[in-house]
Amino acid sequence: MKTTSNLVNRRSFIGSAVTIAAVTFSSGILPQATYADEITTKQGLFMIGPMKGYTPQIGTLVSMLNYNRSTIIKAIQSLSQAQLDYLYDPKANTIGSLVLHLAAVEKYYQINTFEGREEFNEEEKKAWNAALNLGDEGREEIKGHNVKYYLNILSTIRQTTLEQLKKKDDEWLLAIDPASADQETVNTYWKWFHVCEHESNHRGQIAWIKSRLPKIG
Amino acid sequence: MKTTSNLVNRRSFIGSAVTIAAVTFSSGILPQATYADEITTKQGLFMIGPMKGYTPQIGTLVSMLNYNRSTIIKAIQSLSQAQLDYLYDPKANTIGSLVLHLAAVEKYYQINTFEGREEFNEEEKKAWNAALNLGDEGREEIKGHNVKYYLNILSTIRQTTLEQLKKKDDEWLLAIDPASADQETVNTYWKWFHVCEHESNHRGQIAWIKSRLPKIG
Repeated sequence: MKTTSNLVNRRSFIGSAVTIAAVTFSSGILPQATYADEITTKQGLFMIGPMKGYTPQIGTLVSMLNYNRSTIIKAIQSLSQAQLDYLYDPKANTIGSLVLHLAAVEKYYQINTFEGREEFNEEEKKAWNAALNLGDEGREEIKGHNVKYYLNILSTIRQTTLEQLKKKDDEWLLAIDPASADQETVNTYWKWFHVCEHESNHRGQIAWIKSRLPKIG
Repeated sequence: MKTTSNLVNRRSFIGSAVTIAAVTFSSGILPQATYADEITTKQGLFMIGPMKGYTPQIGTLVSMLNYNRSTIIKAIQSLSQAQLDYLYDPKANTIGSLVLHLAAVEKYYQINTFEGREEFNEEEKKAWNAALNLGDEGREEIKGHNVKYYLNILSTIRQTTLEQLKKKDDEWLLAIDPASADQETVNTYWKWFHVCEHESNHRGQIAWIKSRLPKIG
């Protein structure tokens, strides 16, 4: 019943949303902006879809980013510094370095999609290359931090992402990157979906390492 | 320039889409059905967004499912039976069992979201429980198959998903599962996003095992 009435309500305000959109379109307001506000209902980590304050596709992306990030935080929040620094084998990455890698990839797609840059500047390279590249660089440089250090960096980077996404719309999200015109075509949505699904990829590895941690710290 | 003209075109047909939708809404045709056809442009694995033949949010989900699946196929397609059966340690899952697990989880969400069932029937349990539960059950039962066996199962299950999603709309995708009414609210989109991001989670583990395969097969 709850779902049925929910659908009935949604159907009715989709009607009004479209009418409003049709009326206001000539003034340049995109219909999905109205649609997003109308369709956004109950929020929650297990609710994927448009969110108030974002256009429909961007809100949906944000709900995905929020859910995936919650699984990363849940996976690492109880780990000690020794566990975050534990190297499973010589070719492995520590859990700490994998977490910082998530922030580095998100930072890269921020400068790429919000600023239109293909590369980090020198200052950003100093700050992020070890986490972006991992391997020996990451194993040498990323250690000695507690979980708050990693959670704070994740949170700071994500805050910028959400602030910027509030200013964008679905046209921006769906737009093709001109730099990809002569190769496999890439759009902005793929880049941010990748930031999202990339967290799941490394969550799988974090879970693998966690289940094999020695009795330490 | 390519992106700019792309945006100009998109803006113009959003206008016509909304007008058509407003006119036809009283006959019960959902605006996003038209919008989806209008907005769908260039296809490709690195293009996330609405797809022709699906409503906007479902098309976007399908583009995500397609991209993630392509990464799984790329990761496993050259593996031998011995490599697919390789057990890294006693608590690990083989790559073969992880791949079958992806199909089992997708099968579960098919019966859950397309048929409204909470559980596999007896026949489905026999076919899928080992892959769904993994662990000892998976280690005992899932072995001795080549990569074509796994790719065929992935493909068969996915075909049903895509056929069913063609018949659904965004209202269905955004609808709350009544079974979750008394707990953390879950909608259909979360279930299918999870099927998608869950592939990334295990892709991370498949990559980990692949980089540690002994010289076999």
